[in-house]
Amino acid sequence: MKDLNIGMIGYGFMGRAHTNAYKRVNDFFDLEYRPVLKAACARNAGPAQEFADNWGYESIETDWRQLLQRDDIDAVDICVPNNLHKEISIAAAEAGKMILCEKPISMNTAEGEEMCEAVERAGVPNMVWYNYRRIPAVTHARNIIASGKLGRIFHYRANFLQDWTIAEDLPQGGNGLWRLDVDAAGSGVTGDLLAHCIDTAIWLNGAISNVTAMTETFVKERVHSDTGNVQPVGIDDACAFLCHFDNGSLGLFESTRYARGHKALYTFEINGENGSLKWDLHDLNRLEYFDYEDDSPVRGWRSIHISDGDHPYLGNWWVPGLCLGYEHSFVHQVADFLLGLANGKPAGPTFRDALETQKVCDAVLESAKSKAWVDV
Amino acid sequence: MKDLNIGMIGYGFMGRAHTNAYKRVNDFFDLEYRPVLKAACARNAGPAQEFADNWGYESIETDWRQLLQRDDIDAVDICVPNNLHKEISIAAAEAGKMILCEKPISMNTAEGEEMCEAVERAGVPNMVWYNYRRIPAVTHARNIIASGKLGRIFHYRANFLQDWTIAEDLPQGGNGLWRLDVDAAGSGVTGDLLAHCIDTAIWLNGAISNVTAMTETFVKERVHSDTGNVQPVGIDDACAFLCHFDNGSLGLFESTRYARGHKALYTFEINGENGSLKWDLHDLNRLEYFDYEDDSPVRGWRSIHISDGDHPYLGNWWVPGLCLGYEHSFVHQVADFLLGLANGKPAGPTFRDALETQKVCDAVLESAKSKAWVDV
Amino acid sequence: MKDLNIGMIGYGFMGRAHTNAYKRVNDFFDLEYRPVLKAACARNAGPAQEFADNWGYESIETDWRQLLQRDDIDAVDICVPNNLHKEISIAAAEAGKMILCEKPISMNTAEGEEMCEAVERAGVPNMVWYNYRRIPAVTHARNIIASGKLGRIFHYRANFLQDWTIAEDLPQGGNGLWRLDVDAAGSGVTGDLLAHCIDTAIWLNGAISNVTAMTETFVKERVHSDTGNVQPVGIDDACAFLCHFDNGSLGLFESTRYARGHKALYTFEINGENGSLKWDLHDLNRLEYFDYEDDSPVRGWRSIHISDGDHPYLGNWWVPGLCLGYEHSFVHQVADFLLGLANGKPAGPTFRDALETQKVCDAVLESAKSKAWVDV
Amino acid sequence: MKDLNIGMIGYGFMGRAHTNAYKRVNDFFDLEYRPVLKAACARNAGPAQEFADNWGYESIETDWRQLLQRDDIDAVDICVPNNLHKEISIAAAEAGKMILCEKPISMNTAEGEEMCEAVERAGVPNMVWYNYRRIPAVTHARNIIASGKLGRIFHYRANFLQDWTIAEDLPQGGNGLWRLDVDAAGSGVTGDLLAHCIDTAIWLNGAISNVTAMTETFVKERVHSDTGNVQPVGIDDACAFLCHFDNGSLGLFESTRYARGHKALYTFEINGENGSLKWDLHDLNRLEYFDYEDDSPVRGWRSIHISDGDHPYLGNWWVPGLCLGYEHSFVHQVADFLLGLANGKPAGPTFRDALETQKVCDAVLESAKSKAWVDV
Repeated sequence: MKDLNIGMIGYGFMGRAHTNAYKRVNDFFDLEYRPVLKAACARNAGPAQEFADNWGYESIETDWRQLLQRDDIDAVDICVPNNLHKEISIAAAEAGKMILCEKPISMNTAEGEEMCEAVERAGVPNMVWYNYRRIPAVTHARNIIASGKLGRIFHYRANFLQDWTIAEDLPQGGNGLWRLDVDAAGSGVTGDLLAHCIDTAIWLNGAISNVTAMTETFVKERVHSDTGNVQPVGIDDACAFLCHFDNGSLGLFESTRYARGHKALYTFEINGENGSLKWDLHDLNRLEYFDYEDDSPVRGWRSIHISDGDHPYLGNWWVPGLCLGYEHSFVHQVADFLLGLANGKPAGPTFRDALETQKVCDAVLESAKSKAWVDV
Repeated sequence: MKDLNIGMIGYGFMGRAHTNAYKRVNDFFDLEYRPVLKAACARNAGPAQEFADNWGYESIETDWRQLLQRDDIDAVDICVPNNLHKEISIAAAEAGKMILCEKPISMNTAEGEEMCEAVERAGVPNMVWYNYRRIPAVTHARNIIASGKLGRIFHYRANFLQDWTIAEDLPQGGNGLWRLDVDAAGSGVTGDLLAHCIDTAIWLNGAISNVTAMTETFVKERVHSDTGNVQPVGIDDACAFLCHFDNGSLGLFESTRYARGHKALYTFEINGENGSLKWDLHDLNRLEYFDYEDDSPVRGWRSIHISDGDHPYLGNWWVPGLCLGYEHSFVHQVADFLLGLANGKPAGPTFRDALETQKVCDAVLESAKSKAWVDV
Repeated sequence: MKDLNIGMIGYGFMGRAHTNAYKRVNDFFDLEYRPVLKAACARNAGPAQEFADNWGYESIETDWRQLLQRDDIDAVDICVPNNLHKEISIAAAEAGKMILCEKPISMNTAEGEEMCEAVERAGVPNMVWYNYRRIPAVTHARNIIASGKLGRIFHYRANFLQDWTIAEDLPQGGNGLWRLDVDAAGSGVTGDLLAHCIDTAIWLNGAISNVTAMTETFVKERVHSDTGNVQPVGIDDACAFLCHFDNGSLGLFESTRYARGHKALYTFEINGENGSLKWDLHDLNRLEYFDYEDDSPVRGWRSIHISDGDHPYLGNWWVPGLCLGYEHSFVHQVADFLLGLANGKPAGPTFRDALETQKVCDAVLESAKSKAWVDV
Repeated sequence: MKDLNIGMIGYGFMGRAHTNAYKRVNDFFDLEYRPVLKAACARNAGPAQEFADNWGYESIETDWRQLLQRDDIDAVDICVPNNLHKEISIAAAEAGKMILCEKPISMNTAEGEEMCEAVERAGVPNMVWYNYRRIPAVTHARNIIASGKLGRIFHYRANFLQDWTIAEDLPQGGNGLWRLDVDAAGSGVTGDLLAHCIDTAIWLNGAISNVTAMTETFVKERVHSDTGNVQPVGIDDACAFLCHFDNGSLGLFESTRYARGHKALYTFEINGENGSLKWDLHDLNRLEYFDYEDDSPVRGWRSIHISDGDHPYLGNWWVPGLCLGYEHSFVHQVADFLLGLANGKPAGPTFRDALETQKVCDAVLESAKSKAWVDV
């Protein structure tokens, strides 16, 4: 087995989720490569060391440039706010490191394009953490669609509904709340949540041609969590858009952090001539499937409990009926990345793939501003 | 179209449900016979007249014996407490009237046997109102089972859960509460609720061989609603039993009025070698179906929305997707009864069919008392 | 009790649904008025007579102008294609008849405005059959919202998904298929399905300010069912739009006849600061409710089975746990109309109310054409 | 942090599940102790080494007696067939090792009693792997019940339904199939599946007083997987029983491997005077809760998505809305075991606790044989 030395930049929610995946993947998947937790990097030594101790990183760095200079680092994992993705990625590519970058790829398409060019010029393996592709039910949906079972596609709809920012006294910015700070995040729900919906949609249903969108910021001012100053809110609290896909189907997307009762309800549905599929993240082990070829009197939506050995990734885990959870999507993504290293077929989404999602996000935000249809 | 003159005895919940069915059936079903609301009968003229006025009965009677003597009555519908079923039925049979009797057929098997003999001797059409057979989803389940699709049957389970008698200060007996009075009802949930489960079970899965049961009366004394006197509670508040069916499958039944959160949750499930079916009354337009012959990776429980033209009875109603309700089961039962008159194939359950259910109820109550397995 | 003599114009699906409601309402509701099925009117005597015989109309007419001249008609019910609504309504108003008109009120806003002026000038009671308001769960949702429980509203979303026109060889136009003929229907799913969603939305969440929409016609040509000629399809097969409500909330609407697996899946969801509500027509006896005031660890979406005596309209029907169906919405609407006659408070939606929905439909269709946001 | 050196005996499904828990617990829980994978023990060196290599055990043993003599082992984990539990446990206790034993504790009550006496005599920490107590939703149910919210309990029902042994050509016995061999397993579904239901039931609702049961073996003979010989099937394929709890409530339990369509459907429901709870393993992140104190018109079953920080164990994992899976129950059990070591309050179920479940299993099997009620 070959070691793949990981340098982790950041130690937040995603830093934990990715690290957990690196630690678990070889227990369940038979692979040529084995991730080694070589170094954890964060601006301040205190949190960096605490994170390293907790998860078992062998060393720490407090400057990512330093990390990139280390010969014992094969790959860097970028888990810092979006406004840092570009600079680190380009430097990492130039240093010849593989890159696993948290989504969205960048603050905007222009940045993303630079990043793609950098990794392609350097020829380094690269991937963006659109982890939901690897929820087994989602992968299974992709396989069914790719088989042609659904026939011509007419409709695709997705939403990602949360309710955690309704309170007006929730602060914004600072360490744990950079997702609410437009300077760090680039946008609100569009980049944070809709980007997931868009990545999955493109993967399942192909490219998006054009969009008309609206955004809303329900709470106009918030206290900054560090300074205590009241500042305008720059992000979109909610975003919805209509679109056409290149295959002629219609799309409907919505995301918000103001849908009371929904914690992280990511759902999608696709309707084809001969069948349909539905999924939602709150019940992620189920895939709903309608097959028009069933005999008419016994036709109905099938609730497939995705826990059998012949479902994607499931043969590596337990026995039928026993559920996987959220974190397994990251384990699967690492497994596929490592497999891609071994067999030379890079696992997606690459930076280039993720740029397509970024282009749609940009078009959505532009349409919301211009109040016109925008081509992607 | 031939008129079928109905004499209704009783004016309670079931009196309303049956009358509604008589009034609606010809609007939706093309039949040779047409029920005519000829007379409503109740002990007291006041309620009888009010009921007749409200529903459109042409006349009233205050003595069922008088009703039976009228030449203009073709059929009597018995909607009075269980302890009156036998006497009225036998007299009606002797008077040559068709009989539609509310369930359970009788207070016990011995009474029911006398009733069967009477109607068979008289040769009068007869039926018992086990209406749940005619919920379209239940009929559809029966058709699927009868087709052999499920293969060898291993398991049958059913329950009927309510919560309306939990309060200790609920009175018993008297007009609206005779179901809580053992002298009027014969038993508690066994005859009221489990009898429905048993009728459906026998219809779907054949005869029951033997049982072991337990009953419970959680509230031991209640005030009588008429007298205000505190009296012991004679009925079973809850009853559960295990059984074997003649076909070798195992049965599990439960009923209670103490299951907080359930209003009238009648559910059943049947598991066969090649498939399974589930249904529940709270969502009566759905039938859950599992077909083991589906391709393994896309196999799942199908939720069939029973509202298509090729589902039982549905061709007579609206368009796909639009729900029927509880009361339609009675309309269907009247339609089938009238069809049976026309084509000479009596609609079930006949008195004789319903006696099978009564035998199981008796065995259940005996087992609960003797604490031993009892053959049916 | 006072008779209200009904003249029914049309004998299709809606003719049946309304007639059934007229026949049943007094059995279950205690009202001053009683609908009398006085006359059925259709162009051809054959179908008119067959319909009258089946449902019990006392007479027939083959010319609606003739019907309007009869003194023994109090109210006309307009169940003919949309392109006839205006002419009949205006004439009926001028003849002093009450009018119950099938939805959508008209082919467009201009027509609807004329109709409103006519009924208001004549001072005749008038109503449009947006029946879904009277599904008890929907009425219950309205009551909860009106109570202020949800607080400030952020989001409203609704869709109406069907799959019955996917087959390319389905003909259009003619008797049963006028909904597919743009000359008779005015539009496709917008007027047929979205109009329902919009009426409910306005009722629950207030006026809609502006919209951006897209429509699609997936099958471009169809055979006409009468002539057999291939003709272009003029209707919209699918329509989706984003909108703002006057109260500042965001709306998302979609309708299609190409969503495989959905028969008549009308759903809505509303998200407020303190709670949310969801409903769908396929399981119409349930209302999903989220109350943020529940204790945090036991907070969850409540599935309320709308079958209790303290739910809207339910006290008039059966007992808790027993389901109503689609057709009861019409019975409730007739009951409210009759109540309105008695107490002088007209039941909605009146023509004027329905015109608001028409305005939104027009804006939607215009936006789909102009590809721009359109003010309502 | 103190090391706790683990010696794992066995390498099957449970060996993997427990090992995974040992490896993950300190990443997510802040604990005084840290499990160290010291040695893996199996009869044959090949599989033992392969297992050790895959999971990171430092050494192997091929004789559990040898393992028990090692000073560097603090605790043994017994993951071998049931017929070996007693001998190993007693020897381990005598060797002063802590013991974590897979369920059911033993082949029967007599064996279990000996084991309890051994661990208590030796004073070694001991636990049995009834892991389902630590599914967060189940723990949450326990907390709600313990708070008294449900009031007096009337009903408890549970089942564990599978379908994996329906095929008649499935062999029995041997390595992977010892659960079908009565000599290795002691019983069929009773010890394998019902034991889980019973452990949870006792934990949630207290002791069981008496039972009446039935068992069935649907396939009477099977080929042995090692020898190829056809042999009688000694295990119960299905088992159901009725019971009384000491608190006066009624119980209903069922388990089978012949319920087509169910993979590992473990469900329970408890009904109290003021509320009810339901749960099922196929959707393990949800707890259904009914609170009678909700206002009547908005009362309904709440579907609580158990993924918030104030739900049991959840604060240690991700963010609201993101699901855990089956394996986390083992992580939680290890965490609680380690916590118990630190604070001196042993985590349950101890051997003594698990013996109560064994007594019920024995009573169930005896009742199935004697066809009589049996006191526990």
